[in-house]
Amino acid sequence: MSDDSGVDKAAVKLVEEDEAAGKTEKLYEDIKHTLGIDFVPNMYRALAGNPDYLEMTWRRVQAVMGKDRKLGRKTKDIVALTVSIMSGCEYCIGVYNDAVKHAGLDDEALLELYEVIDLYTGLNRLNIGMQTRADEKPWHGCGGGSRP
Amino acid sequence: MSDDSGVDKAAVKLVEEDEAAGKTEKLYEDIKHTLGIDFVPNMYRALAGNPDYLEMTWRRVQAVMGKDRKLGRKTKDIVALTVSIMSGCEYCIGVYNDAVKHAGLDDEALLELYEVIDLYTGLNRLNIGMQTRADEKPWHGCGGGSRP
Amino acid sequence: MSDDSGVDKAAVKLVEEDEAAGKTEKLYEDIKHTLGIDFVPNMYRALAGNPDYLEMTWRRVQAVMGKDRKLGRKTKDIVALTVSIMSGCEYCIGVYNDAVKHAGLDDEALLELYEVIDLYTGLNRLNIGMQTRADEKPWHGCGGGSRP
Amino acid sequence: MSDDSGVDKAAVKLVEEDEAAGKTEKLYEDIKHTLGIDFVPNMYRALAGNPDYLEMTWRRVQAVMGKDRKLGRKTKDIVALTVSIMSGCEYCIGVYNDAVKHAGLDDEALLELYEVIDLYTGLNRLNIGMQTRADEKPWHGCGGGSRP
Amino acid sequence: MSDDSGVDKAAVKLVEEDEAAGKTEKLYEDIKHTLGIDFVPNMYRALAGNPDYLEMTWRRVQAVMGKDRKLGRKTKDIVALTVSIMSGCEYCIGVYNDAVKHAGLDDEALLELYEVIDLYTGLNRLNIGMQTRADEKPWHGCGGGSRP
Amino acid sequence: MSDDSGVDKAAVKLVEEDEAAGKTEKLYEDIKHTLGIDFVPNMYRALAGNPDYLEMTWRRVQAVMGKDRKLGRKTKDIVALTVSIMSGCEYCIGVYNDAVKHAGLDDEALLELYEVIDLYTGLNRLNIGMQTRADEKPWHGCGGGSRP
Repeated sequence: MSDDSGVDKAAVKLVEEDEAAGKTEKLYEDIKHTLGIDFVPNMYRALAGNPDYLEMTWRRVQAVMGKDRKLGRKTKDIVALTVSIMSGCEYCIGVYNDAVKHAGLDDEALLELYEVIDLYTGLNRLNIGMQTRADEKPWHGCGGGSRP
Repeated sequence: MSDDSGVDKAAVKLVEEDEAAGKTEKLYEDIKHTLGIDFVPNMYRALAGNPDYLEMTWRRVQAVMGKDRKLGRKTKDIVALTVSIMSGCEYCIGVYNDAVKHAGLDDEALLELYEVIDLYTGLNRLNIGMQTRADEKPWHGCGGGSRP
Repeated sequence: MSDDSGVDKAAVKLVEEDEAAGKTEKLYEDIKHTLGIDFVPNMYRALAGNPDYLEMTWRRVQAVMGKDRKLGRKTKDIVALTVSIMSGCEYCIGVYNDAVKHAGLDDEALLELYEVIDLYTGLNRLNIGMQTRADEKPWHGCGGGSRP
Repeated sequence: MSDDSGVDKAAVKLVEEDEAAGKTEKLYEDIKHTLGIDFVPNMYRALAGNPDYLEMTWRRVQAVMGKDRKLGRKTKDIVALTVSIMSGCEYCIGVYNDAVKHAGLDDEALLELYEVIDLYTGLNRLNIGMQTRADEKPWHGCGGGSRP
Repeated sequence: MSDDSGVDKAAVKLVEEDEAAGKTEKLYEDIKHTLGIDFVPNMYRALAGNPDYLEMTWRRVQAVMGKDRKLGRKTKDIVALTVSIMSGCEYCIGVYNDAVKHAGLDDEALLELYEVIDLYTGLNRLNIGMQTRADEKPWHGCGGGSRP
Repeated sequence: MSDDSGVDKAAVKLVEEDEAAGKTEKLYEDIKHTLGIDFVPNMYRALAGNPDYLEMTWRRVQAVMGKDRKLGRKTKDIVALTVSIMSGCEYCIGVYNDAVKHAGLDDEALLELYEVIDLYTGLNRLNIGMQTRADEKPWHGCGGGSRP
């Protein structure tokens, strides 16, 4: 990522849309249709080097993220961004910063999310350093928590 | 943490409730009252070695987590748990697994959350490994994302 | 890494090949000869600010990676890439994505490696989140494992 | 979590073998048969709270790890252990330390693996700290790398 | 970070100095004055989307870092750099590599710091992998440690 | 690590002091003498499975940590603890929490160190999430930094 080079520097060859055939071609169509975009993201084009893995990944993403279950999709997008920030994956942070804005978070809401991440990464590390022991009784979060 | 020892093995001395005086005593009262519990969690008792830091931390936790703003408290508890899992802080994971249950997540909802974390930590690392380049156009998350 | 600047933005001054003298010069020759390349990589040029540390590092790398022992060099290169991906070190990921290709991994093999990394970073975090307890009896890996 | 508590402290309820029915029961049989063990590991019993996710996970593990493809299963077990160590997942480290021993690694081989992990986590962080720039030409690993 | 774009690609809108009013304007003045620089760093301009959070963060940074207490400011800057390197935050690594140079660390001292980080990230991961048990008696660091 | 088992659960067999011979026996003597303790820590006993690696590690630890160079030993112990906390290595955190106390840090100083770690892990993650761009001009740390 540290330079000006393009797609050809990726670790594996991307399968371009006009090269896609068979299963890959069908998956590309499904990806574009489902995501409502007119291109196949680099992530999926890289995975197409193994069409079975592309398919397994795409089905799994849909199963986990594609519909509201007990958690709403917006909540899951917020978690996806949080995880990506914790992993330090720039590609994914970029995609999901956009995704949660698209889901309705404005700058104020985004900053609120970053505040929570700032707060807990700090407190987590503090407790790891202090080797804090589990409390004998349960409680419900540092700030009092929410009610159902 | 790998043994049978108790509180006395923590890195810093915990300030017990009956030792607390002045600012610390008042903060302890506020913590118990606000959190609705009858004890001061170990985390706060460890921080009490520096009452100013205890106060700053407690005020900050309340400012970030203590009320709904653009994000609801339940969403923020879910993010706090996600961050704690990503940091690998056992103390905090224990507290927040309890906290989100208290906020209404049953086992099915908890599993759904873990699925999202499983999915994205994997995809994050995949993209870090493949050195995936940013796409030229924005999109809205691997699974299609949510709408406002 | 966030800009267009060159070598002069590195945190410490790199010792150029024509500046190298004494122990550093000899190490530079050994590095180029052993690695079969006609330049000294930036990593080693940065370490040359402390020739003793350069030497200790180079000797150690050779001791660990320079020959087959119980593990073959190809396996160790694959582990080195895996570690680099887990650490999120772009410089090292770039070097080792190239190194394992040079060792014979084609795109299909590379993707298979990324799949394993994707799978286990996910499962690891899932088990950290679920606070899964150790099983009472040993087993041999989620997929059944290999036999000697 | 550093104490004497049992299964009931896990974040989600484990589905015991005698409670399993329908899809879960079949998957439990398949897991035990395929893994050649007489119990269902805690990880899979926790996932059984969502039988569809258990199935998706089990199928995926088999697809990635269950047979030799370009990489042998032993190599993939070594990578699985490496990833688990980098993630700091105690449960998974325990399982995979056993798994690679079962696959034929003796203490000498295990130590050689830990040496590679020690070496590269160190060098990764060193290069992250020094903000080392990508070299203009490719090379093949710090120690010279392997040949196909 | 993955491209050539400027400030407008940041996740949230930066509040420019000529846009700042009220509390934000005063904080900007205080930041520039205290830090002895003629611009407001991007980090603070991003936080200004929530002036209360900007204020809380700035007050906290000053409380922790702004004066010598038991630890000197130079030591704390070294710790801040170490933490930033461990977190892999390029922005912060850049700022703190500069900060510790400004505090008097030359290249030799910086390399010495990187050596300690290299050594311990490696040993940490080695012990995590080996699942090393706590010793029955205390000792004082791998190299013998320092005396008061 | 989460159970009651002893040394025999470690991943590799520890070489007990009365089993040590040749190079290992000499290194054990040197370790105890240099560290001023009457036992060989588990970490070194585990590494003794490969006496050459034990030696290389012990020499390296001494080279990096064993004497004041540009950084004092106390500062380096503080960095070693910081790194261990960031890596989440419980064994090393335990050893180095003791080590820095032995080096003169009391609870107040330890808490000050944890505060710095709390602050920067939070700010690091905040900047990673906000994808903050490098500033055009250098500055010297969020709190103003120290002077030489």
